[in-house]
Amino acid sequence: VTEKLLVCSNRGPITYDGSPDAPVPRRGGGGLIGAIAPVMEGTGGTWIAAPLSDTDRALARRGRSPERDGFTLRFLDLPAELHHLHYDVMSNEVLWFVFHYLFDVPHTPTFDGMFDRAWDGYRQVNELFAAAVCETPSDVVLVQDYHLMLAASFVRRSSRARRPLIYFHHTPWCEPEYFALLPVSVRDALLEAMLAYDVVGFHAKRWADTFLRCCERFVRGAKVGSNDVTWKRRTTKVIVAPVPVDEQRLLAEAAAPDVRSWITSHDELREGRKLLLRVDRIDLSKNPLRGFLAFEHLLERRPELANEVLFLALLYPSRLTVERYQNYFSECLNVVKRINERYDSKVKANVGPIELLFEDDFHRSLGAMRLYDALLVNPVFDGLNLVSKEGAVVNDRDGTVILSANAGAFEEIGPAVIGVQPFDVPGTALAIEQALELPGAERAKRAKKLRDLATRSTPSDWLARQLDATR
Amino acid sequence: VTEKLLVCSNRGPITYDGSPDAPVPRRGGGGLIGAIAPVMEGTGGTWIAAPLSDTDRALARRGRSPERDGFTLRFLDLPAELHHLHYDVMSNEVLWFVFHYLFDVPHTPTFDGMFDRAWDGYRQVNELFAAAVCETPSDVVLVQDYHLMLAASFVRRSSRARRPLIYFHHTPWCEPEYFALLPVSVRDALLEAMLAYDVVGFHAKRWADTFLRCCERFVRGAKVGSNDVTWKRRTTKVIVAPVPVDEQRLLAEAAAPDVRSWITSHDELREGRKLLLRVDRIDLSKNPLRGFLAFEHLLERRPELANEVLFLALLYPSRLTVERYQNYFSECLNVVKRINERYDSKVKANVGPIELLFEDDFHRSLGAMRLYDALLVNPVFDGLNLVSKEGAVVNDRDGTVILSANAGAFEEIGPAVIGVQPFDVPGTALAIEQALELPGAERAKRAKKLRDLATRSTPSDWLARQLDATR
Repeated sequence: VTEKLLVCSNRGPITYDGSPDAPVPRRGGGGLIGAIAPVMEGTGGTWIAAPLSDTDRALARRGRSPERDGFTLRFLDLPAELHHLHYDVMSNEVLWFVFHYLFDVPHTPTFDGMFDRAWDGYRQVNELFAAAVCETPSDVVLVQDYHLMLAASFVRRSSRARRPLIYFHHTPWCEPEYFALLPVSVRDALLEAMLAYDVVGFHAKRWADTFLRCCERFVRGAKVGSNDVTWKRRTTKVIVAPVPVDEQRLLAEAAAPDVRSWITSHDELREGRKLLLRVDRIDLSKNPLRGFLAFEHLLERRPELANEVLFLALLYPSRLTVERYQNYFSECLNVVKRINERYDSKVKANVGPIELLFEDDFHRSLGAMRLYDALLVNPVFDGLNLVSKEGAVVNDRDGTVILSANAGAFEEIGPAVIGVQPFDVPGTALAIEQALELPGAERAKRAKKLRDLATRSTPSDWLARQLDATR
Repeated sequence: VTEKLLVCSNRGPITYDGSPDAPVPRRGGGGLIGAIAPVMEGTGGTWIAAPLSDTDRALARRGRSPERDGFTLRFLDLPAELHHLHYDVMSNEVLWFVFHYLFDVPHTPTFDGMFDRAWDGYRQVNELFAAAVCETPSDVVLVQDYHLMLAASFVRRSSRARRPLIYFHHTPWCEPEYFALLPVSVRDALLEAMLAYDVVGFHAKRWADTFLRCCERFVRGAKVGSNDVTWKRRTTKVIVAPVPVDEQRLLAEAAAPDVRSWITSHDELREGRKLLLRVDRIDLSKNPLRGFLAFEHLLERRPELANEVLFLALLYPSRLTVERYQNYFSECLNVVKRINERYDSKVKANVGPIELLFEDDFHRSLGAMRLYDALLVNPVFDGLNLVSKEGAVVNDRDGTVILSANAGAFEEIGPAVIGVQPFDVPGTALAIEQALELPGAERAKRAKKLRDLATRSTPSDWLARQLDATR
């Protein structure tokens, strides 16, 4: 890539702790970062992000961050309360819910209480990102995800520069009736702002299609094609470009000593049992509860499996200040406790049949992904689900992936996984059973196919797809 | 109509109490009945329904029911437990929820427990209806609503008769992603069975469109046009035919002495306050909770309205054996109690600002519909919502209708109502305020337009639309 890139995202690749004079970097989490970092490194570009820590905020006020990895990271100077309204309330309690179909529709949303302030905060933060974009030279602007849907429309208002503005949407996009759960003015403002971008990208054709249908239904005067929307004399291209796995980097990380030592210790603990694995943030969209219920359903039919399989669930806490997340987490704990108590007498080892671990530990996740016999990825809805592809790349044991048909990645790797309808608990139980008992030859065949499908494109292909669409 | 009609519906126009030798008729409830009864009377046709009472079941076993209104009512001989699985579980806890977007998606549905038995019960009851259809001569078969989606496919299997089979869907139809909450096999079985009908009717273009999209996405090999679907060499026409109000009958009923005496007594109780009215079954889809919250929102801004407006809510209990309905009902009661306590000191009259009444009393409903200044109809989603049209017809006071944009009737009467986005509580509060304070001339103009729109077609037009589509 010869273009100078300017990336905007809510979360940056690094967050800092300690004194702003000697800041200590910490790697940011989330699939988005893993996707973008490789295409930014060494480009001399700029990455604008919201500050997450007090140190980040102090660096923002000084207007500079330490340079590393060959690009400039710039934190926006956002007051914590404003960022709370933007991020926690509008982005995560409203937009995340609408895109993943998470509302309990008879009760929520209601848009009273602090909603108006949150929407206003969302607009302000988008405007601040846009102002930072306007004062930062680059050849192209890459805006990431649902936190920043309005950025381009603010950029257009204050700058006539011709740089292409590209937006990538990392979550699903919902269908029109569901998108219309948003207040009419918000619904229309979001869609119209999206059409200020030159390119809008999605991980799956399905989400691109639902976005196009929303434009068709709600944006008056829009001309909607099969992969573009023309409105007010501007054409926005809509592309499908699933984020790839950075295969070489991932394999290198999976070979790290920490990963190997975790594998050794877990091998002992497992005592020869098969490993059923899940790795997710604790999120309503990730569906761990139905995953545990499906395992219970399977054990009811096949109680002997309690001693033959260890279900290791790496569930990383997330958004636990939100009441519905807290309650959901408790429900998960209760179900796991019930299952472990119920089958305790069948398990000869010390741990099982379910082992729950909470600390977000990337090396442990990689170790577990190398080891699994079956990886359960059953989100209610998911923009892509990078874990399903990462697992395919690092797994050593020809393990099988059980994948929700509602994960964007299903469009890419569907032919090599065991598909599940994520709401269907008995169906998920059957899929787990089938995955655990697949004959060796079939396992190996599938695992090879899966690796091929999961590594068909690289991070630079992903960037190129977006840049090509601007030409 | 010269054709001999055969109607099938879960609930019949009459249910009986007392001894089967001297059965005492009781009028069945629900908008569906009001729509179909006028077109059946005096035709000499047959109406097949599920038995709802022990007397109905006894009549079913004898194979005959008293004749009345010029058609034969036949109850099917269904065991109560089978009908429970069909009606309470599969129809009302699964299909009703899917068509109205009522699931709390992170938690429900799960399809474990008794789901398989319920689906099997649903299929059996549909098969029993189909068997009754096969042995009953008629020129045309009119199957009503989501309880009987499979009937035609069973009729086709056991009969080569060429009678047109018409299905009418009285609820919304949901979008493909949401319809796919159903297990894959159930989703496909329902859609394929719908394509065994010659005609499929909906109350609104919106629901017809979402049905067509589901066929397009999930029925392999289907050729989907803008108002038909061709699959396996059969073409199903998809029509939009909103159920009309039977204007003359309704006006006659609204003039009954019982109605007039209720009006007199309520006039006293109201003590000159304006009347804000709602009339619904207590259903998660009808959205009374957000209606009360919106009224509270309005009173917070305009506390003096507590003494100027009486909010009369006629909420008829329904499905209270279902836990989510029970909880929802309690929440409604709690919110009403809170509002009444909070504004008690502002209200000079004995009752208010909210009056809740529960007994299902048709005359009282009609009386209240004659009296309202504003009628609040804010369903989350609703196939049509007949109350909004009935209110328009009988109201004496140029009252204004506040109507959810998600009610099918919005397509017909939208230009003459104040529309609301039903999730937007502050927006609903504004709409209530606007409706209550509309200047007299504007009220009268709207009310006239509304009556015109609500009476543009008659029950016989409705039947004719369906029969025409078979030709």
